[in-house]
Amino acid sequence: MASQPGRPFRHLLGLEGMTPDQIEPLLDLAESYALLNRSRKVPRDVLRGRTLINLFFEDSTRTRTSFELAGKRLGADVINMSVAQSSVNKGETLLDTAATLNAMRTDLLVVRHAQSGAPALLARKVEASVVNAGDGLHEHPTQALLDALTIRRHLGTLGGLTVAICGDVAHSRVARSNIHLLTTMGSSVRLVGPPTLVPSGLGELGVDIHHRMEDGLKDADVVMMLRLQRERMSSGLVPSAREYFRFFGLDRRRLELARKNALVMHPGPMNRGVEIESSIADSDQSVIQEQVEMGVAVRMAVLDRLTRSRHTA
Amino acid sequence: MASQPGRPFRHLLGLEGMTPDQIEPLLDLAESYALLNRSRKVPRDVLRGRTLINLFFEDSTRTRTSFELAGKRLGADVINMSVAQSSVNKGETLLDTAATLNAMRTDLLVVRHAQSGAPALLARKVEASVVNAGDGLHEHPTQALLDALTIRRHLGTLGGLTVAICGDVAHSRVARSNIHLLTTMGSSVRLVGPPTLVPSGLGELGVDIHHRMEDGLKDADVVMMLRLQRERMSSGLVPSAREYFRFFGLDRRRLELARKNALVMHPGPMNRGVEIESSIADSDQSVIQEQVEMGVAVRMAVLDRLTRSRHTA
Amino acid sequence: MASQPGRPFRHLLGLEGMTPDQIEPLLDLAESYALLNRSRKVPRDVLRGRTLINLFFEDSTRTRTSFELAGKRLGADVINMSVAQSSVNKGETLLDTAATLNAMRTDLLVVRHAQSGAPALLARKVEASVVNAGDGLHEHPTQALLDALTIRRHLGTLGGLTVAICGDVAHSRVARSNIHLLTTMGSSVRLVGPPTLVPSGLGELGVDIHHRMEDGLKDADVVMMLRLQRERMSSGLVPSAREYFRFFGLDRRRLELARKNALVMHPGPMNRGVEIESSIADSDQSVIQEQVEMGVAVRMAVLDRLTRSRHTA
Repeated sequence: MASQPGRPFRHLLGLEGMTPDQIEPLLDLAESYALLNRSRKVPRDVLRGRTLINLFFEDSTRTRTSFELAGKRLGADVINMSVAQSSVNKGETLLDTAATLNAMRTDLLVVRHAQSGAPALLARKVEASVVNAGDGLHEHPTQALLDALTIRRHLGTLGGLTVAICGDVAHSRVARSNIHLLTTMGSSVRLVGPPTLVPSGLGELGVDIHHRMEDGLKDADVVMMLRLQRERMSSGLVPSAREYFRFFGLDRRRLELARKNALVMHPGPMNRGVEIESSIADSDQSVIQEQVEMGVAVRMAVLDRLTRSRHTA
Repeated sequence: MASQPGRPFRHLLGLEGMTPDQIEPLLDLAESYALLNRSRKVPRDVLRGRTLINLFFEDSTRTRTSFELAGKRLGADVINMSVAQSSVNKGETLLDTAATLNAMRTDLLVVRHAQSGAPALLARKVEASVVNAGDGLHEHPTQALLDALTIRRHLGTLGGLTVAICGDVAHSRVARSNIHLLTTMGSSVRLVGPPTLVPSGLGELGVDIHHRMEDGLKDADVVMMLRLQRERMSSGLVPSAREYFRFFGLDRRRLELARKNALVMHPGPMNRGVEIESSIADSDQSVIQEQVEMGVAVRMAVLDRLTRSRHTA
Repeated sequence: MASQPGRPFRHLLGLEGMTPDQIEPLLDLAESYALLNRSRKVPRDVLRGRTLINLFFEDSTRTRTSFELAGKRLGADVINMSVAQSSVNKGETLLDTAATLNAMRTDLLVVRHAQSGAPALLARKVEASVVNAGDGLHEHPTQALLDALTIRRHLGTLGGLTVAICGDVAHSRVARSNIHLLTTMGSSVRLVGPPTLVPSGLGELGVDIHHRMEDGLKDADVVMMLRLQRERMSSGLVPSAREYFRFFGLDRRRLELARKNALVMHPGPMNRGVEIESSIADSDQSVIQEQVEMGVAVRMAVLDRLTRSRHTA
């Protein structure tokens, strides 16, 4: 991604290298779309006549729906293409898919893929603006943007905060994008979890590593829980769900170690009783539903910005 | 559902408790949409800027398509979410799904679910208006409304009629919604089928029970056949398809016991040669295709009414 | 299809019997849509208020997407119905599906089906205009039209050309539609491939048969490669992919036998290294991506023409 300060960008492949003066206006625009969503007054002509293709090589009803809604509310022609993992063979096939979508005069291409870098590869082959909707263990930039917008709405800033990201960080593109964004904006990030899921090598990203929740949550402004994929248990990286909750689940006692009124976040879908106690997920400190709402707004802002930058560039 | 006479309603969860002065205006509105569908003159702005989500936990191409068409013709942004039965765990997950769709600012939520009461549960958790598109063995209200509209168009009234509902009543939410509507409107309902599929306990619903087609069809104004699910045979509730047709299939001889020009109805899809003789399904007395047409019109009326009542309430 | 010269047509079931004065104006209209697609200036009201249903009994993301885009860009309400092969039983069921879609007031019905003649069968039962999107071994008319448009854009004519169609012709509805169109327009067609895939009986179609690429490609203006379905190998009709490429793959050496600057075409998706060398697929002579682009434009033209002819007829 071209990351010159203040310049429009043509793709959204990741947040690494993005600057505060690119991020803040995007969040401002998303904020205004959040209000328009509530009043059902979104202008229908922002993306009129534009084609948005949701190209999902991994299933994700939630993220796909969020992008689909964002595109439709702005008036785009939205096409869903779910590609069963099994029918994908080689990088070559991915490039042929890119060429096909390009020939169809696609304006916006939203891509989720199990391989890190797949959206970037596509971006080099298409005229469309590409949005990374999650690629392997790399990034999931719109998730971090929606997290940031949610934080900013509650705490008024993205700078000077202490954010604890807890759980399966090693396998989380959500964590990775959040680390880039939050450190860029001047906040401190702590990664918290067992050594199997939070290896010390992650310290290279400019973050603190903690293997005990009690240490990691102390005085945090934001506690961001990650979903524990069930396959982590079958592969032996963690013991049972019950054991995991006992040591790394977010409960009332642990949350009280954080700042008073610390925000509780989760990208969803939650495993209640595994990484988070159900009552905490539904408490006043939880902004989990607001994250979903800001998700649609952030995606509208991204689609809007990318389309404008293409056509005025 | 708030069922005060003449009042708008916020959800359509079932027809039990609905009053004639709620039902009749809805059918009038549907009638007008049926005409607009034929002339391709549906106003596109009735649901413009509104979000309709089709949340189907059970497959049903036919019903899903009917709601999708209804929403799109009125200008809504329509999103299909098919949730594989396997990925659904507990009621808790259903509530998290509700919370997510709520956060996305959904206006209309159409739900089909294998469990009775699931749409009502969702309705308590979302700001959207919920339409029950079939829940377990409970209700399928839009099916009964479209049946009613079809009957009214041909017989001019919904009162004072004798309607025979034949076949697998015990497992039919369609039958249940029809019983509520037809008895509310002042018609008599007869349930006809073998004791395994029409247990005598159903008499509590204020209907007559018959175990012989010859008795049940006598002088009926309407003969409504139900689909026999194939699993009823494998589970031993009925013998072979051939035996079933011999005793409970609708053929010419039996139909002649009903009133002259009695209407023949079926919610589809049909098992020709099992519950209904093919030539009867295609005869002049059959209004089966008109039921499908009225289905789209009824759903347009429901979506329209629910949206208006939300925003003027 | 009514094939009187110069007359509008109500369905597009195949190209057999279509006349040049039906084909040429359709390509002209498609050409203009290709330009509008590029400038994002397609008028949104051509199909406003019309319902297009994509009824696919066989999977085809590519063709389905192309029709979906075509319909949406022209403002239609587009509904996708994918019918799993397994749930389809008998011709009777297909007719019931037709009746249902008819009752829903469908204007345009795009059908792909494994059985030859299924779209024609549907066309006799519905008021909608039916477009054949591929039926068994019969025809795939929009593919041949997009091929023709691509050729015409490059060579200026569809008459007097020599077109070599190479590969699995016996199982190709694409080949069949192209043969009809190209011979109708006054070009010569050669079929090239092993006797198992290009049986001599095909000569009845008014084409030349060649079993050696070297003979078939000599002085050809257009080289059209077909996809080799993998099941042809498992069923023993061809040896390994490697052997196939050795004898029937398109490589540089063979392509040089054709006219200088002969066009290289492929309906996609390609098996690179099986029927076509990768570098040839990406060479300056390849118009494979342009075929995809013209695909959307041709489908827009077909949908437009069919709708107009229905409503002015």
